[in-house]
Amino acid sequence: MKKLLVVYGVVLGLFSLYIFNYARSEKTSSLKDETPLTGKLSEKFVMVTFQSGIEYWKSGLKGFEDGAQLFNVSVEYRGAARYDVHEQITVLEQVIAKKPAGIALSAIDPEALTPAINKAHEQGIPIVLFDSDAPSSKALTYIGTNNREAGSVAAQQMAELLDQNGETAVITQPRQYNQQERTKGFQKTILQKYPNMKVSAVLDGKGDELTSKKQALAILKKKPNMKGIFATEANGARGVAQAVKAAGLQGKVSVIGFDKDKKTLDGIKDGSIAATLGQDTWQMGYWSLHMLFLANHHSRSLPASIDTGVTIITKNNVDHYYAND
Amino acid sequence: MKKLLVVYGVVLGLFSLYIFNYARSEKTSSLKDETPLTGKLSEKFVMVTFQSGIEYWKSGLKGFEDGAQLFNVSVEYRGAARYDVHEQITVLEQVIAKKPAGIALSAIDPEALTPAINKAHEQGIPIVLFDSDAPSSKALTYIGTNNREAGSVAAQQMAELLDQNGETAVITQPRQYNQQERTKGFQKTILQKYPNMKVSAVLDGKGDELTSKKQALAILKKKPNMKGIFATEANGARGVAQAVKAAGLQGKVSVIGFDKDKKTLDGIKDGSIAATLGQDTWQMGYWSLHMLFLANHHSRSLPASIDTGVTIITKNNVDHYYAND
Repeated sequence: MKKLLVVYGVVLGLFSLYIFNYARSEKTSSLKDETPLTGKLSEKFVMVTFQSGIEYWKSGLKGFEDGAQLFNVSVEYRGAARYDVHEQITVLEQVIAKKPAGIALSAIDPEALTPAINKAHEQGIPIVLFDSDAPSSKALTYIGTNNREAGSVAAQQMAELLDQNGETAVITQPRQYNQQERTKGFQKTILQKYPNMKVSAVLDGKGDELTSKKQALAILKKKPNMKGIFATEANGARGVAQAVKAAGLQGKVSVIGFDKDKKTLDGIKDGSIAATLGQDTWQMGYWSLHMLFLANHHSRSLPASIDTGVTIITKNNVDHYYAND
Repeated sequence: MKKLLVVYGVVLGLFSLYIFNYARSEKTSSLKDETPLTGKLSEKFVMVTFQSGIEYWKSGLKGFEDGAQLFNVSVEYRGAARYDVHEQITVLEQVIAKKPAGIALSAIDPEALTPAINKAHEQGIPIVLFDSDAPSSKALTYIGTNNREAGSVAAQQMAELLDQNGETAVITQPRQYNQQERTKGFQKTILQKYPNMKVSAVLDGKGDELTSKKQALAILKKKPNMKGIFATEANGARGVAQAVKAAGLQGKVSVIGFDKDKKTLDGIKDGSIAATLGQDTWQMGYWSLHMLFLANHHSRSLPASIDTGVTIITKNNVDHYYAND
């Protein structure tokens, strides 16, 4: 009987413990809901790219995931497998249909993607553009390299390599907005700052190593005074470097590339690429997630754009970029 | 005796309740420290301006405070009372000496402030620039209007007002970086896009209504074909509007101003100012706090800059901006 009473007492104590903690956990979880910068794992943000399998997007996705971890929300990665406008539109439409908490898109073509971007916006799904903008769309903001500025930096670097003297060409993907901007920034800076230089050709390398190589070989043949080629994306730079080598012009034609993938860094190391512009793709993903989360939870207004910056990579500092990869 | 046993049992139960909750609260508070986006009220972020009493800064400070509330940290507002470089350097030095958690500075003069900005950085105090940049300093980032772009927008608006034809002038504060950029953006766009327009004078209005009025009166007398004046800051625009009126040229000379203070909006309403460029100063403060907090707590890297955007305000939409003030 005494023992039974002790048991009752303990049970009573444990019961109050249970009640107390139940109330407490209720309070904790309601506090959690009020914590202004904590989301729910059911809140899913989707990153949409093109050529979705390439190494290039990995660091941006890591930034997106790091942002999601900070806010306790989920992410999903989608994209067109190929370099295909229609495929990317289809993927984006599928993502919109699932009504995610937000979408970060890198647009393969600014005009073609705009209707689908605007559809997301009109359905109340926050959408931001990263890396390649669609500036006439209703997307909330753009996060990425200021590509006009990056093109201008490439022109200044080219001028330094060429002692401000000589003919140059650009190999690019003319339909993608970020590439257009890099090309314009390069052309304008040469035109305005370097009277003894000129851009005598802008060619379509289709974002492809082989096409870029062919284009470069053709222009090197056609314009024997060519002194420098700026490739506005990584595959192009590798193709151009091969063309310069094949034409026996190594050391006579300077190649400037874009991005810091391993093959480009190898090109810098072996001298076939003189310089490349490194983008901070991790930041693009990280701030995309931030902006989408804040659009959902708080912000009265978002920035017009966020410039994630570029760094010039040459033989002098290339080792640092291997180390950080 | 039975009762005593019950009491023992209850005491035992309560004791385990206490121990359990003690352990739990330990766990909670350590969890709280780990909560990635919550700071401490003892963590103080300081905003430093110049002409610190003017209305212009209020909205930026509100953004800074709103950001602080989100992260549970404190803010302090400091600034040079006058438009005085040396006073701002002194104030910034005083703020640095107190070792705050971070500083958001609007630099009255980019070169003169750079040594003090770098000092903060070297002492491990995160420092960001907002509204007016010091681009050669070691500040972590710049948050504000892309002023070059804003100047370009002003030029396009001027071209529309003047049917792309006629002489223009700029009244500015030539030592302040944001004003320099607005002037350059205006000049370059007129030069590149509008062959029948020109910028025939750039004058120092000293950020002052009376000086700007005098300068405008002088140029209107000297250049009777003047068709438009762009004042790169608010006091200037009001001075220029008065000069145009005093010279009897209202309706013949178009004035474009900057910012959306009440007097400028009144000028738009009464037609003495044709258009003004509204900046999002709330965002400047809000994202400054964000960047400083994240620099302290998390981020591997911050954006090169954040463009908070501009909107063109004319008679057509001016009422909206009164409402939102």
